[in-house]
Amino acid sequence: MNKQKPMTILLTNDDGINAPGLHALYKEMKKYGKVYVVAPDSEQSAVGHAITLSDPLRVQNFYKNDDFFGYAVNGTPADCVKVAYWALEIKPDILISGINLGSNTGINILYSGTVSAATEGMFLNIPSFAISLTTFTNPNFDIAAKFAGKLSSIILANGLPEGTLLNVNVPAVTNENEIKGVMITRQGNAMYQEEFDKRTDPHNRVYYWLTGQKVRLETEPDVDDRAILNNKISITPVHFDLTDYKFFEDLRKWGIEY
Amino acid sequence: MNKQKPMTILLTNDDGINAPGLHALYKEMKKYGKVYVVAPDSEQSAVGHAITLSDPLRVQNFYKNDDFFGYAVNGTPADCVKVAYWALEIKPDILISGINLGSNTGINILYSGTVSAATEGMFLNIPSFAISLTTFTNPNFDIAAKFAGKLSSIILANGLPEGTLLNVNVPAVTNENEIKGVMITRQGNAMYQEEFDKRTDPHNRVYYWLTGQKVRLETEPDVDDRAILNNKISITPVHFDLTDYKFFEDLRKWGIEY
Repeated sequence: MNKQKPMTILLTNDDGINAPGLHALYKEMKKYGKVYVVAPDSEQSAVGHAITLSDPLRVQNFYKNDDFFGYAVNGTPADCVKVAYWALEIKPDILISGINLGSNTGINILYSGTVSAATEGMFLNIPSFAISLTTFTNPNFDIAAKFAGKLSSIILANGLPEGTLLNVNVPAVTNENEIKGVMITRQGNAMYQEEFDKRTDPHNRVYYWLTGQKVRLETEPDVDDRAILNNKISITPVHFDLTDYKFFEDLRKWGIEY
Repeated sequence: MNKQKPMTILLTNDDGINAPGLHALYKEMKKYGKVYVVAPDSEQSAVGHAITLSDPLRVQNFYKNDDFFGYAVNGTPADCVKVAYWALEIKPDILISGINLGSNTGINILYSGTVSAATEGMFLNIPSFAISLTTFTNPNFDIAAKFAGKLSSIILANGLPEGTLLNVNVPAVTNENEIKGVMITRQGNAMYQEEFDKRTDPHNRVYYWLTGQKVRLETEPDVDDRAILNNKISITPVHFDLTDYKFFEDLRKWGIEY
C-alpha cells in the first residue's frame, strides 16, 4: 500500500515505555518508516497536561526482546514530546500517542496524558493523533495498531490544520470484521458523579479515595462514546482554543467592559 | 453595594493554601458572605488538570494569623474542588480559583492548575472563575481581589451557561487608576519556543532542565495577552468542548467514514 515515502514517526504514550499498547504500535509503524519512541519510564495516567519544571529530566535507553528500542524519560507524556523534539532533536513527520489502555472520550480528554502528548506535538506543528483502545481487560491492540498505520498515511496525504489534532478511539473487539465503521465525531459532554470512599487509617486519621461513576450519557449519534457503543472507530478533531465563542457576545452584554 | 443576599463562596488555588494571593482573596470575599477555603497543602503549579487516583487524599485544618482558616489537601487543585464538594459537602454559590501569581493566558490555560480548579467547579455546575495577577514580582493582590468580589456579584446576577467558566487576568499595577478598563477577550494562540538546558551531574549522567521563551505574539486587540499589555483586565469565557467544529466538515471530506 505504501507509495508514500517512508515516514519519520515519533511514538509516545502515558502508560509507560513498557506498555503492550506502545509495543504493538511500534511493531506496526515500523512498516511505514523510521520509528522513534520517547515515552515515560513509568505509568503517567491522569496527569493531564502536566509538565515538569521543578525536577531535571533524564533520558535512558530502553531495550526489550531484541526488537524494541526507545528512550525512557522520567517525566510526563508532554515532557517526552518536548524532550524528543528539543533535546534529542527528533523532527518527525507524524506523532502518535498510544495505544492507550482504556478510552479517552468526552471530558476525559482534559485529564488524558495520551491526548496531552498529541497536543504537545500539535503545538510543535507536528501532525499528531492520540489513539486509545476502549477496554482495560484482554486488550487486542492489533486492530488499533493497523488503523493507526492507515490513518498516518491518510493524515500525511491530506494534512492537518495548524492547531488541530485527532483523537481516535477504537472499540475493543476480537475480530476486525466486528468493527462496523469509522465515524468523525464530536467530543461528548457526559458528566461524572464522583464519590469519595472515606476511610480511617491505623493512626486514626481520615483519608479519602476518589471513585467515579458516569451519570449522564449523551444520546446523539455523532458523539464519541456513541460511536464506540456502535462498534465504530471514533475520530474527533480536537483543537485548543478554549474560548467559548457562543457565549462571547452574551458576556459582552453584561456591560462590564469599559 | 450588597443588596444581594450573602454568598457561599469556595476558594481554591494552585499556589497552595499559604499563598498571599489566596489570603488577599479570602479577606475580600468575606465581605460577600461565607467563605470556605479548600486548597493544596503545597504549590501545584503546572499540574494541568491532574487528578489523584493512586494516593489517598487527606484533609488538614490550616490556620494562619487568627483570621484565616482553610482545609489543606495533599492533592491538586482539581482534587481540592472534588474533595470540597463530595467529601466536605460544601455546595457553594460561586467558586473562585486564585489569585494566581503570574498570568494564565493563551495556551497556558491548558497547563494551569488555577484554571483546572475552575473547570472542576464548572463540571459540578458551580459558577466558577479563575483569577490571576500578571506578575511574579512585588505582587499587589488588592486590586484583583476587589475585582473578584465585584465580578462574583455580577456573575450571580447574570448566571453563567452550563459548561462555561471565566478566566480572568488582572494587569499588575500599583494604583487602581492605572487599570485602563475591562475587556472580554479570546484565548491567544501564541506558541512557545522551548529550550532544554543540558547538564551533566556529578556521576557523569546527562539531565535536562526545561526552559521556555515565548516567540509569537498575537497582534489582534481582542486577545487576552493584548488586553493585559494595554493595562486592561481580561475576561475570557472558556468552555471545554475541544471539538474543532471548523475543521469537522473538511475532515469528513477525507472519505474515511463508512
